[in-house]
Amino acid sequence: MKVKFMQAQILRPTLLIDKVKCINNINRMIDKASGNKLIFRPHFKTHQSILIGEWYRAAGVNKITVSSVKMAEYFASNKWNDITIAFPVNVRETEQINSLSAKINLNLLVADIQTIDLLRTKIITDTGIYVELDLGYHRSGIDISKLELLKEIVNKISGSSFLRFKGFLTHAGDTYNAENPEMVSAVHLRNIKLLNSLRKIFIADWPELIISIGDTPSCSVSDNFGGIDEIRPGNFVFYDLMQQKLGVCLFKDIGVIVLAPVVSLNNTRDEIVIYGGGIHLSKEYLVDNEGRKYFGKVVFPDNDLNWGDPEDGSYLAGLSQEHGIIKASKNMMRNINIGDLVGIMPVHSCLTANLIGKYTDKEGNGFDHMAQNKNTS
Amino acid sequence: MKVKFMQAQILRPTLLIDKVKCINNINRMIDKASGNKLIFRPHFKTHQSILIGEWYRAAGVNKITVSSVKMAEYFASNKWNDITIAFPVNVRETEQINSLSAKINLNLLVADIQTIDLLRTKIITDTGIYVELDLGYHRSGIDISKLELLKEIVNKISGSSFLRFKGFLTHAGDTYNAENPEMVSAVHLRNIKLLNSLRKIFIADWPELIISIGDTPSCSVSDNFGGIDEIRPGNFVFYDLMQQKLGVCLFKDIGVIVLAPVVSLNNTRDEIVIYGGGIHLSKEYLVDNEGRKYFGKVVFPDNDLNWGDPEDGSYLAGLSQEHGIIKASKNMMRNINIGDLVGIMPVHSCLTANLIGKYTDKEGNGFDHMAQNKNTS
Repeated sequence: MKVKFMQAQILRPTLLIDKVKCINNINRMIDKASGNKLIFRPHFKTHQSILIGEWYRAAGVNKITVSSVKMAEYFASNKWNDITIAFPVNVRETEQINSLSAKINLNLLVADIQTIDLLRTKIITDTGIYVELDLGYHRSGIDISKLELLKEIVNKISGSSFLRFKGFLTHAGDTYNAENPEMVSAVHLRNIKLLNSLRKIFIADWPELIISIGDTPSCSVSDNFGGIDEIRPGNFVFYDLMQQKLGVCLFKDIGVIVLAPVVSLNNTRDEIVIYGGGIHLSKEYLVDNEGRKYFGKVVFPDNDLNWGDPEDGSYLAGLSQEHGIIKASKNMMRNINIGDLVGIMPVHSCLTANLIGKYTDKEGNGFDHMAQNKNTS
Repeated sequence: MKVKFMQAQILRPTLLIDKVKCINNINRMIDKASGNKLIFRPHFKTHQSILIGEWYRAAGVNKITVSSVKMAEYFASNKWNDITIAFPVNVRETEQINSLSAKINLNLLVADIQTIDLLRTKIITDTGIYVELDLGYHRSGIDISKLELLKEIVNKISGSSFLRFKGFLTHAGDTYNAENPEMVSAVHLRNIKLLNSLRKIFIADWPELIISIGDTPSCSVSDNFGGIDEIRPGNFVFYDLMQQKLGVCLFKDIGVIVLAPVVSLNNTRDEIVIYGGGIHLSKEYLVDNEGRKYFGKVVFPDNDLNWGDPEDGSYLAGLSQEHGIIKASKNMMRNINIGDLVGIMPVHSCLTANLIGKYTDKEGNGFDHMAQNKNTS
């Protein structure tokens, strides 16, 4: 008989995953995609886990997005055979790309014309190419208004021996600057309009053109995907405080927390020092209504490792390499002891998972993360 | 014959280490310690590397500081047998602590009285105990003015069977809020004065009392260590832009950079997209004189992987998970091509090393990091 997994077995900062919450998040996004007749190609950079990937496969997903050649290799080695690397192609890895592209359906992303010229000489196996569009986020991609340049790029791709033009891809990262779901929707609707104008121009010559969008806020909040063919959200599987602050998810949807041991109490300042710092949570922070930075919010898992909404009046106010400093409510100070575990809801779950490099579920099972980090239990 | 290691062999974000610079940094700090008759117990959390540890050993170092039980185990397994864990003790790991303490000289840190009560029952092998003092940084430790509490803690330690009171330890993290070396020195001199007052009170009963201070800024800048017995700086082996901005080191002292491939060019905005993001560099940033955030500065390693001072007018202005965005000078834009490697001087080298999890030297040798991260080359 398996011994019940309990709090007492957790020694060090540990990334706890709630499988039920994550699968609910996955199913909700699958319903959104199928209800809108969209190809669902979830981004796996959030979890980077073979075992979590299986939850998607069990729900019928067979196309995925990743953010590096290494990540594509990681998932290809576990029978994922339709992968888009949604990051401007790194021409230093063309040998690895050719090798992978010979085995699976691989799509690359290009964000400028110079890269196409290099790929035309370096790619020697059939490979799909998406052109990245910049719709206002201004990170990477071609400005969607530069129609002549876009035509020139598409012609260069289609005139090559091994590159197959697949369509246009964009990431509306500017939805993360929104303050509420209405502002997310406004950015999304502006983007839909821009993308539909572009579609009209290219669809005659490219009837199989795919228009692919990506961000979790737009995909969570919106129900208008007219003219869009594919969505690639990733963060939604876990969500986090950044999404919660945008109004894109509720606290109860957040599927991962960091369990951190209490190592010191300061009753004078109502502060709690936890073993859980920047190397576990990342230095990403948010600012609350009173202008205070927070690096996480505090929850209290019960002995079965279930947790509820965050404690009012307590928050993770500071982080150094291994230290976290909680500004605690009077209530929390009264009830906490040295050696207790607290749960920290992360600001940015993708970075937290990458840092800790391993998941532990409520039954004590460990799930892989590509960045197997030995720092933690 | 060994083939020369060159830029062309670097495919992905890579942490390049300049051994000569690091060894110069180590030797300079050793000279500082011996000139001031200080015990030198360098913090190994910065590098977390067995092989880099050997550079210290070769220079005569035999006492080290670490920040976790796991890290103590990592170095103990490589013949380091005098280790202080300078982090408030995590009572969930007392089994591991007892086991380690049976094998080596191990010192723990306590930052409150409750922890002592727990350790008195849980520690069953002779173990050194330092009491952490808060001199104004307000992260962890007992306020140095709370003399009665300090006496009570020391008495509790000395009245126990296995705990050996060693002395007082502090980390003057508030030197990182300074704006120049003079301000660093001012914080350091305030601390020296406070620590000497405390020493006078305890030295009669504890003639072997050790007073240990820790931060790289104080140890780099100051030449007054009267009344201090031990220094524990760590960051100095690599330094970084945070230290350079404080005036604590020069650009030429910085011993690690991240090599990052250029994946896209935006000539309209004079921006360069690199493969090198928050999962490589951390989200730590500084603010320049014009109020602009920077996440790194740009250097250009030559084909032998030597680098000089950063390029004027170019800086790493933004980071997402894998993307870095360089705001580039006109000169840089003219000379850069897709597929080139640029060097990024990190803001906080400890976090960058932890994220990349591996070092590569100019001859192509790989050095271990405890957090072996598989994300990178």
